[in-house]
Amino acid sequence: MITAQAPSSTANLGPGFDVFGMALDACFDTVSVAEEGSSITISSDDDIPLEYTKNTAGIVVDMMRTDFDIKPGVHIKIRKGVPAGYGMGSSAASAAAAATAYSNLYNLNLSLTELTRYAGYGEQASAGSIHYDNVAASVCGGFVMVHTKPLRVINLRPPENLTMCVAVPDVSTPEKKTQVSRGVIPEMVPLCDVTTNISFASSLVAGMCTGDISLIGDSLQDVIVEPARRHMIPALDDIRNLAVSAGAAGVTISGAGPSVIAFADGSIVDIDSVGEAMREGFGNHDINCKIFPCKSAKGAGTVQ
Amino acid sequence: MITAQAPSSTANLGPGFDVFGMALDACFDTVSVAEEGSSITISSDDDIPLEYTKNTAGIVVDMMRTDFDIKPGVHIKIRKGVPAGYGMGSSAASAAAAATAYSNLYNLNLSLTELTRYAGYGEQASAGSIHYDNVAASVCGGFVMVHTKPLRVINLRPPENLTMCVAVPDVSTPEKKTQVSRGVIPEMVPLCDVTTNISFASSLVAGMCTGDISLIGDSLQDVIVEPARRHMIPALDDIRNLAVSAGAAGVTISGAGPSVIAFADGSIVDIDSVGEAMREGFGNHDINCKIFPCKSAKGAGTVQ
Repeated sequence: MITAQAPSSTANLGPGFDVFGMALDACFDTVSVAEEGSSITISSDDDIPLEYTKNTAGIVVDMMRTDFDIKPGVHIKIRKGVPAGYGMGSSAASAAAAATAYSNLYNLNLSLTELTRYAGYGEQASAGSIHYDNVAASVCGGFVMVHTKPLRVINLRPPENLTMCVAVPDVSTPEKKTQVSRGVIPEMVPLCDVTTNISFASSLVAGMCTGDISLIGDSLQDVIVEPARRHMIPALDDIRNLAVSAGAAGVTISGAGPSVIAFADGSIVDIDSVGEAMREGFGNHDINCKIFPCKSAKGAGTVQ
Repeated sequence: MITAQAPSSTANLGPGFDVFGMALDACFDTVSVAEEGSSITISSDDDIPLEYTKNTAGIVVDMMRTDFDIKPGVHIKIRKGVPAGYGMGSSAASAAAAATAYSNLYNLNLSLTELTRYAGYGEQASAGSIHYDNVAASVCGGFVMVHTKPLRVINLRPPENLTMCVAVPDVSTPEKKTQVSRGVIPEMVPLCDVTTNISFASSLVAGMCTGDISLIGDSLQDVIVEPARRHMIPALDDIRNLAVSAGAAGVTISGAGPSVIAFADGSIVDIDSVGEAMREGFGNHDINCKIFPCKSAKGAGTVQ
């Protein structure tokens, strides 16, 4: 039996819709695989589909098993640590852990890009379209940029003192939340907005490379996707103002939301104060939230 | 009398339309300013307008003189080294040199961002809209990313071994070339193309920061502006293929064209061979060209 763990993640980071991802050590999914029987079976104590064609990890393993023509069946045991439906890369974490565990079970020696590709099939099931930002982060760790034609993951180690805080609101989210929140994004974008997002995405990468957390914070701006999703998170402006007052360098929606993530220089800012400010922001709108202070995480790996 | 020199530059670098610029030591404009009379007069041996309201350097100096309420007039002497109308940032070089010279004449102690802002007014006269990519590069040197609201220039030093080659075709260009070539760009962009350009722009910055010239070359891709301008440079695909065969890491249109620029790792590639390949590419379309092998330049500065 092989067990692998993969971290939660945040996608987009403001301007980088479907391009940027960052692995977060806030929480982890754990997936064990063991050769068993002649098909794919799944067990879990969590409230997730156990039919393998409807389960993120099951879909990933099914695809790998078919591609590598592996005859024996497999039993998959899933322990969810990442809350599903809140923009913390929950399905991506299961997919990344499943791809990593199964690859190790059969010594497939897959590259991180290949693991990302397989994990992406699992994402497709939950989001309705393949996007690799969360899975690339969960597989590779650190900060990632994704090219899709062809698939390529560029991986950077974020600054050591970069600290984050995710606020996960206690609200109900629609069944196919990612699909719904992708549906509100405009299909056509004015050229001036393209230029603005490219400028922020570029300077965000420069900040990651040079360790300039203030520049990272200033670059968490998005004039394309956030305006279309803002109505889904009415507390966002409040949270942003309060978190920045508490020392955050910048605040943005985590993935498709409804979680919100703040970035700060942990060497000069108390991240717990930032978290309390975010709690107050949601509180002003009568919403409770869970606070996850975190750092960038390593990518998926096997555990004992 | 104060004399300043400012380098040629390339804008866009593939995916970074109106955002990316790089100063090039291929050629320079030189602008001298001296207090004289009570208005602005201009002299030059080059074929440029000498009326200050129609001259890039004159417009810049006029704006600074007004803003700082400087009563005495000034004589501006301009020596053009950067060929105008070919995508090498000719007007930006004059504007940057003028802003730098005039700022020094009156010890205005302007920041690089302020100098960029003034130089931008000169660009506006030639391009029909303010864009800061070339002027920021000419003022600051190295590789720049520009935010516009508010204006902010993020400046990176490119890898030491990054070498470039500009091929300037011997073709006539329209009077208001930049304005014309901006006119062909679509005003609305499909979201999937936005994502693609953001991914390439981001990885180009990562390549600049980490010294990965191969990644820089792979990232010189643009699915928004280049497809709209490609018909203006029919030799582009030929040049690209030949230059890459000669060792270039990547090739793109320089600014609004019609010049083409190749990027290479000068420590392992003979840039003159890349230049000859580019010459052959234009030659296949019966076009002669001048070849400028170059490196990243320092920004505008005073000279004796």
